[in-house]
Formats: sequence, C-alpha cells, structure tokens
Amino acid sequence: MAKNIKTRKDDYAQWYLDVIKAAQLADYSPVRGCMVIRPEGYAIWEAIQQDLDRRFKETGHVNAYFPLLIPQSFLAKEAAHVEGFAMECAIVTHSKLEKDPNKAGALRPASPLEEPLIIRPTSETIIGHMYAQWIQSYRDLPLLINQWANVMRWELRTRLFLRTSEFLWQEGHTAHETADQAQVETLKMLDVYADFAEQILAIPVVKGTKTESEKFPGANTTYCIEGLMQDGKALQCGTSHNLGQNFAKAFDIKFLGRDQKQEFAWTTSWGMSTRLIGAMIMAHSDDEGLILPPNVAPVVAAIVPIFKTPEEKAQVREFIDKVLTGLTGGTKSIGEQGGEDIVSYFFNKQTHQKVVVDWRDARPGDKQYHWEQRGVPFRMEVGPRDVAGGVFVLKSRLSRDKMITPIADVTPAWLTEKLAAMHTTLLEKARTFRDQSTRPASSYDEMKAILEKDGGFVRCYFEPDADAEAKIKTETKATVRCIPFDQPDVAGKCIFSGKETKTQVLFALAY
Amino acid sequence: MAKNIKTRKDDYAQWYLDVIKAAQLADYSPVRGCMVIRPEGYAIWEAIQQDLDRRFKETGHVNAYFPLLIPQSFLAKEAAHVEGFAMECAIVTHSKLEKDPNKAGALRPASPLEEPLIIRPTSETIIGHMYAQWIQSYRDLPLLINQWANVMRWELRTRLFLRTSEFLWQEGHTAHETADQAQVETLKMLDVYADFAEQILAIPVVKGTKTESEKFPGANTTYCIEGLMQDGKALQCGTSHNLGQNFAKAFDIKFLGRDQKQEFAWTTSWGMSTRLIGAMIMAHSDDEGLILPPNVAPVVAAIVPIFKTPEEKAQVREFIDKVLTGLTGGTKSIGEQGGEDIVSYFFNKQTHQKVVVDWRDARPGDKQYHWEQRGVPFRMEVGPRDVAGGVFVLKSRLSRDKMITPIADVTPAWLTEKLAAMHTTLLEKARTFRDQSTRPASSYDEMKAILEKDGGFVRCYFEPDADAEAKIKTETKATVRCIPFDQPDVAGKCIFSGKETKTQVLFALAY
Repeated sequence: MAKNIKTRKDDYAQWYLDVIKAAQLADYSPVRGCMVIRPEGYAIWEAIQQDLDRRFKETGHVNAYFPLLIPQSFLAKEAAHVEGFAMECAIVTHSKLEKDPNKAGALRPASPLEEPLIIRPTSETIIGHMYAQWIQSYRDLPLLINQWANVMRWELRTRLFLRTSEFLWQEGHTAHETADQAQVETLKMLDVYADFAEQILAIPVVKGTKTESEKFPGANTTYCIEGLMQDGKALQCGTSHNLGQNFAKAFDIKFLGRDQKQEFAWTTSWGMSTRLIGAMIMAHSDDEGLILPPNVAPVVAAIVPIFKTPEEKAQVREFIDKVLTGLTGGTKSIGEQGGEDIVSYFFNKQTHQKVVVDWRDARPGDKQYHWEQRGVPFRMEVGPRDVAGGVFVLKSRLSRDKMITPIADVTPAWLTEKLAAMHTTLLEKARTFRDQSTRPASSYDEMKAILEKDGGFVRCYFEPDADAEAKIKTETKATVRCIPFDQPDVAGKCIFSGKETKTQVLFALAY
Repeated sequence: MAKNIKTRKDDYAQWYLDVIKAAQLADYSPVRGCMVIRPEGYAIWEAIQQDLDRRFKETGHVNAYFPLLIPQSFLAKEAAHVEGFAMECAIVTHSKLEKDPNKAGALRPASPLEEPLIIRPTSETIIGHMYAQWIQSYRDLPLLINQWANVMRWELRTRLFLRTSEFLWQEGHTAHETADQAQVETLKMLDVYADFAEQILAIPVVKGTKTESEKFPGANTTYCIEGLMQDGKALQCGTSHNLGQNFAKAFDIKFLGRDQKQEFAWTTSWGMSTRLIGAMIMAHSDDEGLILPPNVAPVVAAIVPIFKTPEEKAQVREFIDKVLTGLTGGTKSIGEQGGEDIVSYFFNKQTHQKVVVDWRDARPGDKQYHWEQRGVPFRMEVGPRDVAGGVFVLKSRLSRDKMITPIADVTPAWLTEKLAAMHTTLLEKARTFRDQSTRPASSYDEMKAILEKDGGFVRCYFEPDADAEAKIKTETKATVRCIPFDQPDVAGKCIFSGKETKTQVLFALAY
C-alpha cells in the first residue's frame, strides 16, 4: 500500500492533516472554517467528555444549558470583553427564509430582527444575565455550573481541531461569596485540567499565569496549562479565569451578604475544547500515523486473523474466541458498524472501550496498516502456526515491538497493565521531550537564536510588559506562554529591558 | 408556605409552567423563544441522553458531529424539504461586530457573508452532503450515525421544553444499500423510541404512521410515537423517517452496487428532543408539583432529619448514617452543591443517581415541600422517636403513602424494588388514563362532541386526505396524530367522506 502520510520532518503541517485523514478523525465541511468530527474522532471526544465530566461532578459542579444566541447589546456590556474578544462572530440578523423572486429555486433572508443576535463565542454574558436573577443571597452561593456546548469564533486561518470557527467545548461558570473563594476555585479547576491532561491524554503541561496582554479579556487573571508539541511549538490546553467582580458589575450579579449588605459576586470561568484532540495528535503520533493515549482509545486492541483455508480459519477463530474470553469475558458489543466483518467486544463497559476482531476479506498486512493508522494501542496477530504453539503475536503501536504471548497469560488485568504501562511511557516520553526542549536564555539574542534553531520553550527572566511583548512577537512570532508557578528565588536581568526582575517566563511559538 | 402551583383543573397551561418553576427545571431567557435549562432540568436530560445513547450504540450506531451552520443553498436542494420545513430559521448574514459610529458604546454587524448561513433546523442536508463524499461502494454501507446537537426553528408561540426556538436533540441519519434495509432501520428506531418512552419515562405511546399531510417534508413515510397528556391533548414524542432516495438524489449520495452499477443510497432519519421533558411533566405530575419517573430521577430519595436539641441531632445523624450505609454503602458523592447543607451519596454510580440528606437550617415541613416539588420519588423522615423505635417514615411521592419502615429492611435492593414498583404504577396509571381517554366515533359530529367534551384520542375510520384534514383542523383544531399500526380487519365508513375505508386513525388536539 502506498504511504499516505508525510513525515514530521518533511512537512509537519501536512503530516498533521495526513494523520487526521488516515485515521478518519475529521473532515473540512462546506462551511468555511467549520469541521465535521467523524465517528472515529468523536469517540475520542466522548472519552474526553466522560472523564472531564466525572471530574467536574466530583468537584461539586452541575451541568446546565444556556442559549446559543446572545443579544448583541450584551457583548458590549463588559468593556474589556468586547474590546479584546467579541468582535469576530457569526451574527444572526433574520428569522425567515423566503423564495427569491429574482432567481428560480433560490432562497433569501427575510424578517429582519430588531436586535441582531450573536452565536456565542463564549457565554460569560448570557450566563451573567441569568446569574443576576438566580442569586439573591449568600445562601445561593457558591453557584457551580458547567456547560457542554458548541461555540463559534470567526477564524480566518483554520486548522482541523486546533482552530476552527465552530468548536465543541465545556465552559465552567461559577459565582462565589468572596474573592478568596473565587481564587480557590480558579486554581482548583486549573489543577483538574492539568491532572486530566497528564493522566488521560499523557500530555505533560506547565501550569502558569498569563501576562496582562495574553489574558482573557474581562478577567482579572488568567491561568493556563501549556503543552509542547513535537515541532517545538507550544499549545494552550486549557484556561481558568478569575473574573473578579468585572462581569458581576456588568451584569448586576448582586447578593445580600452575611452582613446584610448588597455585594457583587466574585466569578470565575474555565474551558477546555476539541482542540485537545489536536494537542493529543501532535504530542504523540508518529510518521506511521495516529498514536492514541490508551485512556481515550475507543478500541484498545485489534485482532487480525491470518488464514488461507476454511480449516485454518476455523482453527484461528476457535483460538481467537479463547483470547476474547480471556480478555473480555466474550461479551459482544452488539451490532457495531461493519456488521460481521469487524466484530467488537466490550473490554471496559464503564469507559465503552472495546477489543475488535477484523474478519474483513482483505490482506492481513492491509488490516494491520488500517489499525496502525487509527492509533490502536495493541494489535494481535493469530495464524495457524500460532494456534499450534498456543501463542499469538502482540504488537505495540508505540514501541512497535512484537511479543510472542502465550494464551494462558491473557486476562483483563494483563491488558489493563499493558495499557497503563503504555500510558506511562507516552507521558514520560513527552515529558523528556518537553524538558529537553526547554532552554534557558540570558539575552534576547540568545532567545532568538534558540527559537530559530531549536524552537521549544525558552525560559528566561522577563518583566511582563505589553509593548515589549508586542515587539518581541513582531520580531520572533514568539509570545509569553505563561509565567510558570514554579519561580526562582533570586532576581535576574530581564532579557528585553535589561532591568532586574524576579519574574521568569516561558516564551515559545504557539498554535 | 404559600401554595405556588395552580391546579390542573383551574389552569392547565399555568399549572405546567408553575411545576417547572417550582422544580427549577428551566427559565425563559432574554432571547425570545429560547430557554435556559437549569441544573435540575439538565440532570433529567443527562439521564435521558445516557439511556438513549446506550440504546443507539447497542443497535450499531456511532456518534459524530456536523456543523451548526448550513449554506442557504443546501436548504433549497430537496424540494419538499424547503417547501414544508426550512422557512422559519435563524439566518447568519455577517461575520464581524464593529463599533457603531452613530451610538457610543454600541455595536453593529459588519463583514457581510457572500452566502447567508442557516442555523440547522435539522441536518439532513449537510449530512447528505458529507455522506456523498464518504460513501463510494456498497462496502461503505450501512452508515449508521447519530448526532447530539442543538437545533433552531424560529417559533412564534413558545412553551418551555415543548416548543422553543432552540432545543437540544439527537438526530440519527443512516444510509443503506436497499429500500428494505432502510425500512427495517426506520421501524427498528421507532421501536427503540417506544421502548425508551415506556421503560424510562413511563409514558405509554401509540406507534403509527403519519398521514401525507403530517409527514416530515422530504420523507417517503414518517412513523411516530404519540403520547397522551393529562389534559387530553396528544404529544408527539419521537419520529422516524424513511427518506427513500429523496435526499440521496438531492445530494448525490451514490454507491457502486454489488452489480457494479451506480445506485442512490436509501436513507433514514429519526429524532427525539428535550420536548420529552415536557411530555414527562405533563404525563405524570400532580397539583403538588413535579413527579419524576424513577429511572430519570437524579435524586431517588431525600432524607429529612427532625430534631430540636444538639443531642437529638447527633442521635438522628447516627441513625441516618446507618440508613445511608444500608442504602448506598455510604459512598459520598463528593462536593455536591450546597456544601454541607445538602449532602449527597451515590445510590447508583452507573446512572449517577443519588440519595441526599437535607441538613439545611430550615423547618422540616419546608424541606419536605422542597423535595416534593422537585418530584423526588421517595422521602424519608427521621426524628428522635423513630430512632428510639429503630424505624423511619418513608413517603412515596406518587401514592403519598407514609410507610413506617424498620431500618433492618434497608438495602440497595429494597429501594431498587420500590423504585421499579413506582415506575410500573406510573406507567399503568398513564396507560389506564390513555385507554380510558381513547374513544371511538362513527361520525364527524360524534368526534366533534367527544373533542369538545372530553378531549383525548378519537379513534375512527378515516381515509387520509389533505383537504379533509385541513378542514377538520380548521373546524376542530384536531389533527390525525397517526394511523396506528394496530388496524382492524374489516372496513368501515370514513367519518368525513362517508366512503368505505380500511383505515382507522387517531384524531386529537395536540401540542
């Protein structure tokens, strides 16, 4: 079969798109900048959703749903929000289609709205409006709500998963009695995000604070987790904002305090999106295609039978049934797509993860390739000789090792351990790469040389300053990704101004 | 406390809104016709989603996500679709907000789009466009995809859950090799819907076919399940459409058949929405407020402690801990809202259902009222005298019985059985009501008299005919809800034309 994926070295941007195409994760749609998330990609999003949702509920949050459309006037209420954020939007101006009298078979908009409506780019404003009605007393606080939703920002340059006009995300919106409580919440959710990124997606992240010029418009402080991709560019994986009383003042979210005085609530917001799927691809995959972190792999193992004669097929089938009984108890996951060709069995009912057997009428090599490109953690090959020896061949997607495995070894725990070990290896591999790609710089010239030659994170003393950051961005395309929580005890010289500062930052080119 | 819910008899429409308000299920939003689904309401939707999603996957479907926005020209491609359906829509015409130079602090739309985009009222067109690219050969069939999404139809008269401009739903879209396979799929999903409505929401439904004038525009045949509400009006709970080759022809979904010829695919679509929550409320609730079918109740039991002194509180708490250990193993569901005031424990981790203890500083009567209005299936009251006797008082939300229960009886299976019995009672109660409210008519006058006096379903011979149906609708407001699958063996006289027909239909006023 022809090689259908570019190498990372040859063309990283094309490699990324090729990996997505080969794994059938997503497609561009006829609407500019909007993607279709195909079933193989959506199953990954479902795994992400299930795990994040559990974490949100365990930290006391509940889900709700707010309207897609926001009155135009709402977006103008919080001054910084509208300045920095809410300008590239999809705007609804009409509520009816009618036949175009000038063109047979064509339609045109009719019934103009009195006030245009904006498809939510984020929901602080509409949620703020509702919170103002729901919150009367300190007894109504904290209010801890999350929403799973689609949002829209009109992007000029789009890239599947990483930057699309419409994307899926979750947005948490909480209201608190005190500034301290809001700050605790903001950092708690950043920790939830960091743990999730590492434990589920195997992406090691740096926790830190955004500079003033990189923060969310309308926030007092934005915290983020930053990951590093294999091409040395950074990718923001999640943000958590302490909004202070800014939105409470703009939307009049007031409550009667314990002291019987009216006070404005303290609010936060935090979000993660389908962009994480892009991060996961860029952090782990290789020149052969997708590598899925085991905890979000919809299929954890694919079994490829090898046979020539009907007798061999029967022997192989009998052996595979034994493997399946050992692995899954043999519970068939009824009626998966592909009918009798690809038969799937529940490996973990809780996470919906499956083991599949590929009985399609195709060459074993093509089937191996099929599952390899889809990033399935383990493949098993069973042929007549294996049956005779009571073994099968186990192939790791990550190490590409082939392990002759006796059937007696096969239990659910056996595969669970192998998956856990693969997760650890992926995470450590990514951490080593990240650490090796984080370089100190003591001057601006040194930073520029590193960015040009190696990319990655440049860690240096820098006094955050909007003008300086803008100049550096123009000259190098690099931005301050964050001010890491982990800061040195001693001061040093700002690489840009030369002045003494106690602040170290991470610069990088970013997605 | 003041009675805050109208009776059904006094004002059914207001009763419905009062029930929703008292249970905090939903609110109107500042965007006309759009609702906010509050956490208590959204938890019901999550239970619905979880169960339906499992059923879809067990019948071989996978989830995916298609764009929110649809090019205007797509909606014009299927002639019947655009005629009957796609006219009342939200239309996106601009992609940018800019400051309004004529009004300080205000914004206005800028950057008009070349082609307007429509917020999906349903996704047959955009999905048809993608299927045309994905389907090449009979080997790519069947394609069995479901989408969980928000959709929008510009409604003039709205009612929370039942009819809102934006609503949440699932839409299945499948493509098949033969007409027969598409028909099997269409009916299979109707069965899934009917089972779900009865087993999960305790709503008995009639399965049937829509008449030509009531079918989905673009479908060959629409099948539906119809429920009956307590005011005698029908409510369509779900539809499944056999689209024939109509959308395949409009969007060029072709495949190379086993005979090496190009053929158009046969497609289906089917959907259920947040309207089900409205149906569930109207089918079961009473003049005291919400009654939740146990299988979608986020909280299955609420425990209300009664005490005066700290000593009594300690005794009661110790006793309640024993009840909780018996019921749930005592696994606290961490950090639920309300902090230490309302403490919740997992009753069923799979379904996320919980048991809560209400320690708030309020009168026991108020707390009872709180949980009653939220439709919680069982409440338990524990006071010092109960502790002394080793018993507690169990109150059923449905029968309103009080049962003195020895603590020794309490196990997870004990409550599971009680919940299952309540489900059966609810379903049977609704079925009895539905059967008693289904009346035969042998003439149009008789039908009118029934509709005026009693409402409910009128079952009669009727030869479906668009003109006749339009006249009857104008005169009586009633429509043919469906042609039930269950038909008589003998012919009879059409109540409208007087001609002999073999077809019986159900007429009713409907939501």
